Amino acid sequence: MGRWEPGARERLVMAAVDLFTEQGYDATTVAQIAERAGVTKSTFFRHFPDKRELLVAGQETLSRLLVEGIAEAPGDATPLDAVAAGLERASTAMGPATRELAPRLRAAVAASAELQERDALKIVSLAAAMTAALVARGVPDPAAALASEMGVLAFKRGYAEWSEGDRDADDELAGHIRVALNELRTASASLG
Amino acid sequence: MGRWEPGARERLVMAAVDLFTEQGYDATTVAQIAERAGVTKSTFFRHFPDKRELLVAGQETLSRLLVEGIAEAPGDATPLDAVAAGLERASTAMGPATRELAPRLRAAVAASAELQERDALKIVSLAAAMTAALVARGVPDPAAALASEMGVLAFKRGYAEWSEGDRDADDELAGHIRVALNELRTASASLG
Repeated sequence: MGRWEPGARERLVMAAVDLFTEQGYDATTVAQIAERAGVTKSTFFRHFPDKRELLVAGQETLSRLLVEGIAEAPGDATPLDAVAAGLERASTAMGPATRELAPRLRAAVAASAELQERDALKIVSLAAAMTAALVARGVPDPAAALASEMGVLAFKRGYAEWSEGDRDADDELAGHIRVALNELRTASASLG
Repeated sequence: MGRWEPGARERLVMAAVDLFTEQGYDATTVAQIAERAGVTKSTFFRHFPDKRELLVAGQETLSRLLVEGIAEAPGDATPLDAVAAGLERASTAMGPATRELAPRLRAAVAASAELQERDALKIVSLAAAMTAALVARGVPDPAAALASEMGVLAFKRGYAEWSEGDRDADDELAGHIRVALNELRTASASLG
């Protein structure tokens, strides 16, 4: 199987993440990102309105897919089954580009307090979006919040397993997340 | 019962939070905070090394108390009982000064993306500290992470109930958190 080749959008994201790691988010310009990615500035602006948007674009897609998956789960799905449907939907958007990017993104976040704070807020926003989608299905509030936190934990754990594994393997993110969510279901019965 | 009167430290925190709301975190100086609080700059520096520390000091205390409470719970306590002991310990440090500050802090955070990001990271750090304390007690990893998230949810929900309630009432934070944790225990059985 041939190695995955990134397009301009993916190259821009990788170049940006590498530059954020090397010299910080604030010190990195759009011109530098475009140059590192081997594209023109106008190509950058065809893909992203600005540097910040480049960072949040992926998050908005993820949030939208999670919410869609939860909303479209069968009417008789339990809260955790609806969360599982959201995670399944979101996983489909995270293929080789995401896996290639993951170690660079980890390095950039580890190097920057600003990106750690942004990353934390991103996770809080995902949990809030999932909770709202569950409440819209009629799940009562404390259960909706708890099911969402379990979904976030399953996502983080499955994503870590997958993105730290062999990048040329063909295992999919969705499978790792399913395993993680099942482990959490089992664990929840042991909390006392 | 007489209304609670803040000391210099509490007045400094309140002045800082109000100024952050009015003019932003970056634009606020130590001199302005001291002036608003009616103390000298050297009084500020007796309490806090700098402006940022003023924001994180409360968090470090909270984290330390949560961890101590979990570590000192009886050896046969279930994971959630250990979390409850941590929450109980942390609540004792949050009296009238915290309650007086809560609506101002909420306004400051609502007004500032920077403080929202910092607040989110604070919550992630609390969950990580609780997870580590549970793992140190021998709780296996997915259960420890889940029990910690339930603790964080219980804290947030109990704190919101308490801090949005009547500030002159004598109900205690600990009671609200106990109710919230019990609701989450019940909810966890309904997630499917």
